[in-house]
Amino acid sequence: MKTVTVELGDQRSYPIYIGANLLGDGQYLQPHIGGRQVCIVTNQTVAPLYLGSITKSLKVNLQNKPAYQVNTVILPDGENYKNLQSIESIYNCLLENKHNRTTTVVALGGGVVGDMAGFAAATYQRGVKFIQIPTTLLSQVDSSVGGKTGVNHLLGKNMIGAFHQPQCVIIDTEVLKTLPPRELSAGLAEVIKYGLIADKAFFEWLEQHYELLLAGEPSIMSEAIERSCRNKALVVGKDEKEAGIRAILNLGHTFGHAIETIKGYGEWLHGEAVAAGMVIAVELSHKLGWLTRADVDRLKYLLKQVNLPISPPKDISVNQFLETMQLDKKVVNGKLRLVLLKKIGHAVITEEASNHQIQKAIMNCQQTPI
Amino acid sequence: MKTVTVELGDQRSYPIYIGANLLGDGQYLQPHIGGRQVCIVTNQTVAPLYLGSITKSLKVNLQNKPAYQVNTVILPDGENYKNLQSIESIYNCLLENKHNRTTTVVALGGGVVGDMAGFAAATYQRGVKFIQIPTTLLSQVDSSVGGKTGVNHLLGKNMIGAFHQPQCVIIDTEVLKTLPPRELSAGLAEVIKYGLIADKAFFEWLEQHYELLLAGEPSIMSEAIERSCRNKALVVGKDEKEAGIRAILNLGHTFGHAIETIKGYGEWLHGEAVAAGMVIAVELSHKLGWLTRADVDRLKYLLKQVNLPISPPKDISVNQFLETMQLDKKVVNGKLRLVLLKKIGHAVITEEASNHQIQKAIMNCQQTPI
Repeated sequence: MKTVTVELGDQRSYPIYIGANLLGDGQYLQPHIGGRQVCIVTNQTVAPLYLGSITKSLKVNLQNKPAYQVNTVILPDGENYKNLQSIESIYNCLLENKHNRTTTVVALGGGVVGDMAGFAAATYQRGVKFIQIPTTLLSQVDSSVGGKTGVNHLLGKNMIGAFHQPQCVIIDTEVLKTLPPRELSAGLAEVIKYGLIADKAFFEWLEQHYELLLAGEPSIMSEAIERSCRNKALVVGKDEKEAGIRAILNLGHTFGHAIETIKGYGEWLHGEAVAAGMVIAVELSHKLGWLTRADVDRLKYLLKQVNLPISPPKDISVNQFLETMQLDKKVVNGKLRLVLLKKIGHAVITEEASNHQIQKAIMNCQQTPI
Repeated sequence: MKTVTVELGDQRSYPIYIGANLLGDGQYLQPHIGGRQVCIVTNQTVAPLYLGSITKSLKVNLQNKPAYQVNTVILPDGENYKNLQSIESIYNCLLENKHNRTTTVVALGGGVVGDMAGFAAATYQRGVKFIQIPTTLLSQVDSSVGGKTGVNHLLGKNMIGAFHQPQCVIIDTEVLKTLPPRELSAGLAEVIKYGLIADKAFFEWLEQHYELLLAGEPSIMSEAIERSCRNKALVVGKDEKEAGIRAILNLGHTFGHAIETIKGYGEWLHGEAVAAGMVIAVELSHKLGWLTRADVDRLKYLLKQVNLPISPPKDISVNQFLETMQLDKKVVNGKLRLVLLKKIGHAVITEEASNHQIQKAIMNCQQTPI
């Protein structure tokens, strides 16, 4: 078991535990539970697989205190249900079972579950404790770390939310064995992102090890998760609320969110949309003279090897793209701020790209997949 | 014009401006607006009276920058509408009009409007700027100061919310001239509360000046508001997120919330429920040997003079009271924490009162109004 710490100072720093079979082991979960009430939020896919282990691990209070009161919310699976109606069903469970301010909300599932459970925890009685147990690669390496929580609105993804840091993140690498291959690939998009924005050595390591990752080789997978979490923790520790540098974590996301919004949530997986979005960002970085054509091809090749899309849907017009991106949270006073690459391993936040260049980059990517 | 500052350190301290005719004066509002977008949230009662002045004051950008984009949400009036549906209509306005992260939400109205606008600001794009322009006495002296935001749930008042401090609070004493007498009295309940919990001299001043307050005498009203805000700012500055001492501001509120929840929101005004709740708290403080019978009668007399109820509804059973209070945010591990008085001007947070004593205090108050 390895531990990565997210350093936030003032008693809000927290550990990320990474290892096999941590999920059913009360010694990781219990010390981070505040009171004696726990509300586990999960979904219909994950519940049959892992809910039993968690509730079993809470049967005995390891600190010799009275048993926990455990209640469960099982949401329908999918980004389509990441809305305020689902949040209300979490509030209902908490209130019907008289959870008080000392309760702890545990998210057991992927990014959608984590974002919603976190938002409910951030807003129930003006904020209660919260623990992340991510069960997809994408949520393990990205969304469970850093305290971003939220839900979608018909007019935009994650438009409603709050910053609310967890007490800890418990990453059980064993759960990846039950993850569908398409979900595994989607998670690798975010893993590759860390290499692109801040860690060239990691990018090169991924070029060498992607086959073992796809095969789910435990030690390689564990290393990829740990290196991803270290990169994310470093950025979050510097800029918790995204006043500046944290925005580099959004490489490919402005384009990706537009794809998700236009296609309807759930059609493209988040990681797939981010992969296509990263290709556009890299293409644009090439147009600005920062990346070579070889760099662009190198990324496309790696994404293709791990079964990720390298071009956005052809049925989205460039105007639709631009209009939807105007709604993005990164737009300030009408100006689109993009994350682009100066080189592999060095991301910048910039307004340098003109609308014309952005249009060209999108069109190029739509027209010329490898 | 007087200024009271809420001291929170780390660049989050903010001013409360108190004076006549501040509302239509852009020099108070504009310096606290972040970007160029403003969303004014108000209600159907307040909009015809004051919305025009505010929008007019935003017509010209005093800093010689481009004009503001101003959008407006007009909610139905009343505690009945303090729910997530109203919050959604604020989100809709923000998104339909493409408000970005630099937008500023302005609450123009009473406590219900302020709580909802604040919650929407706390959760739109994970938090945007927020300004309070309270138009009732109650919101001027209490809810607009301190950063508590939230909405009700069918199962409990303010159960959903967030801490989100405003950029400033603009208190225009002129607006009280249009306030219905019943609302003015409700506000005085919170004014009297400050005397009871922390400021005996203020309580005595109120005993001497209540007639002028009821008559709306400007200088006396202004002094009452200022002294109330100073008391509140002092407590909030010590304990922003209610880890301890801030809870004394809830004197009478645990009982009051139960009345509001059981009777249905809107039946009793918040201040009226708090008045009856303070009488129960004071009666209980007497039972614990802390206050004299004369102290209890003194409070009842003052509340009666300003037309506030001094006993809870007789059709609520004691068991209903206790059950509903179990859902209160002040309940921790099943134990009811109450704010009671050691003496007038000295509140404590205590678990000393037994259930039996609480029952007796409620029954006494129900049976023996003056």
